[in-house]
Formats: sequence, C-alpha cells, structure tokens
Amino acid sequence: MQPRALVGEFIGTAFLLAGVVGSGIMAERLSDDVGVVLLANSVATAGVLLVIIYMFGPVSGAHFNPVVTLAEAVLGDRRWAEVPGYIAAQVAGGVCGTMLANLMFDLDAVNLSTKARTGSHLWLAEVVATYGLVLVVFMLVRSGRLRLVAGAVAAYIGAAYWFTASTSFANPAVTVARTLSDTFAGIEPVSAPMFVVMQLVGAALAALTVRLLYPPAGA
Amino acid sequence: MQPRALVGEFIGTAFLLAGVVGSGIMAERLSDDVGVVLLANSVATAGVLLVIIYMFGPVSGAHFNPVVTLAEAVLGDRRWAEVPGYIAAQVAGGVCGTMLANLMFDLDAVNLSTKARTGSHLWLAEVVATYGLVLVVFMLVRSGRLRLVAGAVAAYIGAAYWFTASTSFANPAVTVARTLSDTFAGIEPVSAPMFVVMQLVGAALAALTVRLLYPPAGA
Amino acid sequence: MQPRALVGEFIGTAFLLAGVVGSGIMAERLSDDVGVVLLANSVATAGVLLVIIYMFGPVSGAHFNPVVTLAEAVLGDRRWAEVPGYIAAQVAGGVCGTMLANLMFDLDAVNLSTKARTGSHLWLAEVVATYGLVLVVFMLVRSGRLRLVAGAVAAYIGAAYWFTASTSFANPAVTVARTLSDTFAGIEPVSAPMFVVMQLVGAALAALTVRLLYPPAGA
Amino acid sequence: MQPRALVGEFIGTAFLLAGVVGSGIMAERLSDDVGVVLLANSVATAGVLLVIIYMFGPVSGAHFNPVVTLAEAVLGDRRWAEVPGYIAAQVAGGVCGTMLANLMFDLDAVNLSTKARTGSHLWLAEVVATYGLVLVVFMLVRSGRLRLVAGAVAAYIGAAYWFTASTSFANPAVTVARTLSDTFAGIEPVSAPMFVVMQLVGAALAALTVRLLYPPAGA
Repeated sequence: MQPRALVGEFIGTAFLLAGVVGSGIMAERLSDDVGVVLLANSVATAGVLLVIIYMFGPVSGAHFNPVVTLAEAVLGDRRWAEVPGYIAAQVAGGVCGTMLANLMFDLDAVNLSTKARTGSHLWLAEVVATYGLVLVVFMLVRSGRLRLVAGAVAAYIGAAYWFTASTSFANPAVTVARTLSDTFAGIEPVSAPMFVVMQLVGAALAALTVRLLYPPAGA
Repeated sequence: MQPRALVGEFIGTAFLLAGVVGSGIMAERLSDDVGVVLLANSVATAGVLLVIIYMFGPVSGAHFNPVVTLAEAVLGDRRWAEVPGYIAAQVAGGVCGTMLANLMFDLDAVNLSTKARTGSHLWLAEVVATYGLVLVVFMLVRSGRLRLVAGAVAAYIGAAYWFTASTSFANPAVTVARTLSDTFAGIEPVSAPMFVVMQLVGAALAALTVRLLYPPAGA
Repeated sequence: MQPRALVGEFIGTAFLLAGVVGSGIMAERLSDDVGVVLLANSVATAGVLLVIIYMFGPVSGAHFNPVVTLAEAVLGDRRWAEVPGYIAAQVAGGVCGTMLANLMFDLDAVNLSTKARTGSHLWLAEVVATYGLVLVVFMLVRSGRLRLVAGAVAAYIGAAYWFTASTSFANPAVTVARTLSDTFAGIEPVSAPMFVVMQLVGAALAALTVRLLYPPAGA
Repeated sequence: MQPRALVGEFIGTAFLLAGVVGSGIMAERLSDDVGVVLLANSVATAGVLLVIIYMFGPVSGAHFNPVVTLAEAVLGDRRWAEVPGYIAAQVAGGVCGTMLANLMFDLDAVNLSTKARTGSHLWLAEVVATYGLVLVVFMLVRSGRLRLVAGAVAAYIGAAYWFTASTSFANPAVTVARTLSDTFAGIEPVSAPMFVVMQLVGAALAALTVRLLYPPAGA
C-alpha cells in the first residue's frame, strides 16, 4: 500500500470539492447574475486545481479523479492494484470537502441536491468534457511535460465550465460528492449515474486517442 | 504526408471552436449583461487556446489557423506541400467543433448565423487582430522562445476580444466555422469573406514586420 | 538583525493591504453587484500577491504573514530570534498599506470598520483558509519547488476568497490592518481576535500535515 | 542609433494603447455595470502587457514607458543618449495606438477626452502606482530574473487598475495618448501634466528603494 499517496489524494480532492461547492454557494449568495456566479465558480475552481496539483503532484500524482487513475492503469503507467485505494481516497475526500463547504456556509453537513441534470445533450457534454480533460493530461505526460499539467488542467476546467453544457463535472468522485449539497454546484443523486457512465466513455475515447498519437514502444 | 499532425490540427481546432461557440452560448443564456457574456467568452477562449497549444505543439506545431500555417510557409519554416492538408484539417476541425457545441447546447448541429458583422472599422479591426496574433507567434519563434507561445497566444486573444471592435476572429478557419451557429459567437456567412481577406492582409503585414526585425540570415 | 529583510516585509505587506483594501473600495464604488465586487477584489489581490512574492522572495522570503513566519520557525527553517522582527514589520506594513488605500480613495487615513464577522462557520472557514495557505507554501518548499510559490499562493487566495465563507483573511497582520478601513474589506476590531486564533489553529494543523507528509530527516 | 529597438518600442506601445483604449470602449458599450467595464479593461490590459513584453523584450527591453527608460538610465543600466529616442518612440506609438483604437470603434481618430482626473488623492495614487511598477521591474532585474518581468508587470497593472484610485496610468506616454480619446480610458488634457509629475516622483522613489535594497557594487 501507499498511505502517503492516499493522504494526498484525500486532502487534494477535499480541497477541490470545498472549492467547487463553496465558491458556488458564495457566488450564488452575492450575485443575481448567473453569468457572474459561474464566472466566480469557474475561476475559483481553476485556482484550486492549480494549487492542489502543484501540492500533491510529487506525493500522489495529483489525480483527484477516478477516470484519470483508471486511464493511467489502462495506459500502463500505474499498477491496477493501486486503483481501488486511489478511488476510495478520492471519493472520501470529495465527500468530506463538500461537507466542509456546507458547514463553512452554515448549512447542514449533508443536504442532498435537488437539481436535475439530465438529457442527451448534457450526457454528450460530459463525454466531451472528460475526453478533453484526460486527453490534455496524457498528451502532456506522454510528451514529457509533466510540469505543464497543473496550469493546463486548471485552464481546461475553467474553460470547460463554460463550453460544455453540463458545466464539466468530468470526474466521478466530484459527481458523487456534488450530490451532497443542494446549492449552485449540486446534482440530484438520480442524475449522477449517467454522468459517471458518460465520463467513463469520454475517458476511454481519450485513452484511445493518446494511444493513436503516442503508440506504445513495442507496437 | 503527415497524418499524425493532421489529427492534431483537427482535434485542436475542434476544441477551439467548441470552446469559442459553446462558451458564447452558455454565457448568453446565463447573463443579460453583454459585458459579462464577453468576459466569460474571452476567458474560456483563452483557456482553451492555452490547452490546445500545450497539447498539440509537439504533434503539429499547434497552428489551428490557416494564416499561421501560411505565414510559416512564407517565412520559410514550413514546406508549401504541407499547407493544403493543414488548412483542410483546420477547417474540418472547426466545423465539427461548432457542430459539437451546437449539439451540446441542444441546438441543431448546423444553424446558420444571422449576425451581420460588416463595415470598414470591423475590417480594420480584423487586420489589427490578425497582425498582432501572427506577430506574437513569430516574434517568439524567431527569438527561440517557443515555450512562451501558448501563454502569449491565450493572453493575446483573450485581450483582443476586447480591444478590437470585431472581437478578434483573426483566423479563417474560425471565421468559416462560426457561420454555422446562430448564437453569440456567430457571423453571417455573407460577412465572412471580407473577414478572411482582412485576416490575410494582417498576416502579410505581420510577416513583413517579422522579416524586418529578424532579417533572414543570408540577407 | 536583518534590516534588509524587514524592509522587504514592510513594503510587501503594505502593498498587499493597499491592494486588498483599495480594490475593495474601488469595486464597491463601481458596481452594485456584490459578486462583481468580490471578483474584482479577488483578482486584484491575487495579482498583488504574485508580484510581491516575486519581488521580495530573494530579499525576505516574502512571508507578509505572521503565521507563515511562525510555521517556518516551528518547522525548523527559520531562527526564532527573527520571528518578532518579521511580525512587527508585517503588522506595521499592513497598517500603513491600509492607511494608504484609505488616503488614495479620499477617506480618513484611519476609519475603524463596523463590519461584524463572527460565528462558528466563519471561524471554521478561517481554519480551513489558513490551513490551505500554509500547506501549499510548505508542500512546495519541502519538494524543492520554491519558484512555484508565488503563482500558487496567488491562485489559492484568489480562489479562497470565494470558497471560504470568511473570504479568507488567513493572515493575522492582514486581519489587524483590515480593522482600519470601514469599507468592503473591513472587519470590526471586536471580530478580529477570534479570526487570529483560528488562523493559528489552521497553521498548526498545516504544519502537522507537512511533518506527516515530509517527515524530518532524523525521524 | 538603435532603429530596431525604436521600432519595437513604437509597435509595442501602440498595441498597449490600442488595448487600453479599445477594451475600455468595447466594455463601456457592452455593459452598464462599471465594475464589469473595469474588470474587462484591466484583464485586457494585463493580457496585452504580457504579450508585448514577451514580444519585444529581446528587441528593445520592452519598456513602453518613459519612466522605466529614465529609471534604467538613472540606475546606470542604459546610456542617457538612448533615452530621447526611446521616449519619442513610446509617445508616438501610444498616440498611434489610441488613434487606431478610435478608428476600430468607428470614432474620429482624435477626439480629446473631457474626463477630469484631478485631486490630491488621485495624485497620491499615481505616485503609488508608478512606485510599484518601477519597483517590481527593477527588483526582478536586479535579482537576475528578467524572465518573470512580463507576468509580474501584467499582474501588477491588472491589480493596480483596482487598488489605486486613479486606475494606475503609471506611464507618461500612456497618459499623453489617453488624452486623445473621449471614452472610458480618457483623461482631459489639462489633467495630464500633474499625472506625469506624480509618475516621475513615484519612479524616483522606486529607484531610491532599489538602490537601498540592491546597493551598487562599488558602494
């Protein structure tokens, strides 16, 4: 086992969700212009992503996202035995981060979202969002430019909040955790499973693209 | 031929247009303040540009723009034989990216824009916008600082959305693709040809400036 | 003594507070949308942080924050004898910076804030905010990536303004100084002591986490 | 003479003013929320600054600002004989950039500003704004980190638009040029001289501070 890495994934994903959910609550309370709310939410999320990837890159690889961990295993860069621990730490961290955000804003620690997010266009959006996220991570890894990942992921998600109709969840741990806050960033539990399925589809397509553009040495 | 590079240009330009058009639709739906809409649109576009240049720089050079490819050929950095393939991939990617944005936001895949963008001041703006874009790319290339191009292009276009009256199309593939969405970022097909002409003028002036400031070795 | 470092801490913290307080006043005067006000305030604060850390990093280590200085001493990276001077320079700089902001906006140099900031959820938010700030600084220091600190701290605080309910003071010198302006960024003097206590708690927890993830060589 | 450097200063300052004035006009036309207008104006200005410093750093040193050129001469890093040419190129570039912005937005090339900007608090703000700008440039130069100047100046000015009550002109060439557009970024000609005087005072104080923190080798 690798407890140090799991601590990293846990703390990092907790900060990610505190950032996503907390900034949504703050923005929603301060502004009536939903454009301004999403602007604040996207900029704050990008900021948090940059920081947690910087912080925990050397500790755990800074995934904070089950599909990134899965894609790493599929692409042969991580042992499958490490995957369950990573995913458990990510989901646990995400749940705690959302609860922390709720508490910081004087809400019940858990308050299930009632915001329906469903429809084939939103599912397409999650495929696109996750495809792009996984693609950017592994295109940079494959070209030996790990140091660019933090800035690229932050910029990508900050933009994808806007250009994908689903506001780019792109992360199963984030999706599960965001069911626990009935606020701006929330998602009704019943809407979550299809989001996760679409994220897996997007990640699989991205892994195929990476393999196409950077074929394995032996191929 | 160079199929790997063409895949890179196709995917990158598709993401660029999904970003430009999609963020415009999202912003327009969320806010009544057109300033907020353009702020979201410009920040999201900058984010996407940073990411696609990072991703595909080592694959294709990350042009996503026919005038950049043409300028590279004019300045002697790329063989003319590669130009048609690049431009075809860019236009095809751009068209698919716009269609993807339309579909993600539950619109018809193709819905022609009815937004007229015409007038000599807008044409001047496109000359200026494209001049600046091509200039920044090749000033950095000529001074051996390729690693700065992604951040510089993102910052430049993010700013040029605001300081050029045309909101800085600065890219013929983008111009063609943006005729296919009758939303915030759209341009009426009949307005497109003059935009492309002005972009070519701006790029030519930039190539001249680059040659003036970095004369060819033999000159 | 180290007078050069103290000059650096003084000027840097003065600019930090001029930035925090000044941008709050400007934004409050220009916009009725509090979301827009906090967006301006957070972006401006992030910009100032980046710049002062760049400027004074080689001069003083660029703390501008008593809990960072204290954590450095606790973690064995700075002599305790230097701590009082640093803290005095930070508080003095912060006070002068707030007065400068007040004067630039045609207010009395000192005008005590009447904005109550109290309640257990805000205190929790200060613990979280300071925990994250100190964690990011020392995770980067411990992994030998000092050059990333400026960007990371700027991004972190820019985001934490949004995701912590207290808008992330996370700094005792800043907290004291912000009592002196009855404007957007102000805090009633009576609310300040609990903020400082919570900041110390957050910093202590962060130091423990750093020690857990990067155990001392002899342990 | 150094004609290549002067071309760089001219084009760069022209882009700076096109950016400052143009983005002000665009934002003012799109939004009724002056906070949103200044947000767009400040972000666009920061983007342009980053790009022009990247582009022309190796060509001319990328000053675009008479007080930076003067401070360089005072601090012994540039020959006095080069100063008049630099300042002339900066002012000429700034004037042309403003005219270009006016034309791109379908206004008369020259339309004198009627916006009064006067009062001792605004003058103090210009001292502070220019002090900070010159300080950040030379603190980075003196510590051998020229590569950070572009990002630092962009972040500084983007923030200083908000935290100085004068919105941080901090540049005599910019001040002169901004008299020529009766739009958001304009300044009444009669208000300009005192702004320039205050900028000189701020720059002189910054040069003294740099000399204090980095004493000349022979001292």
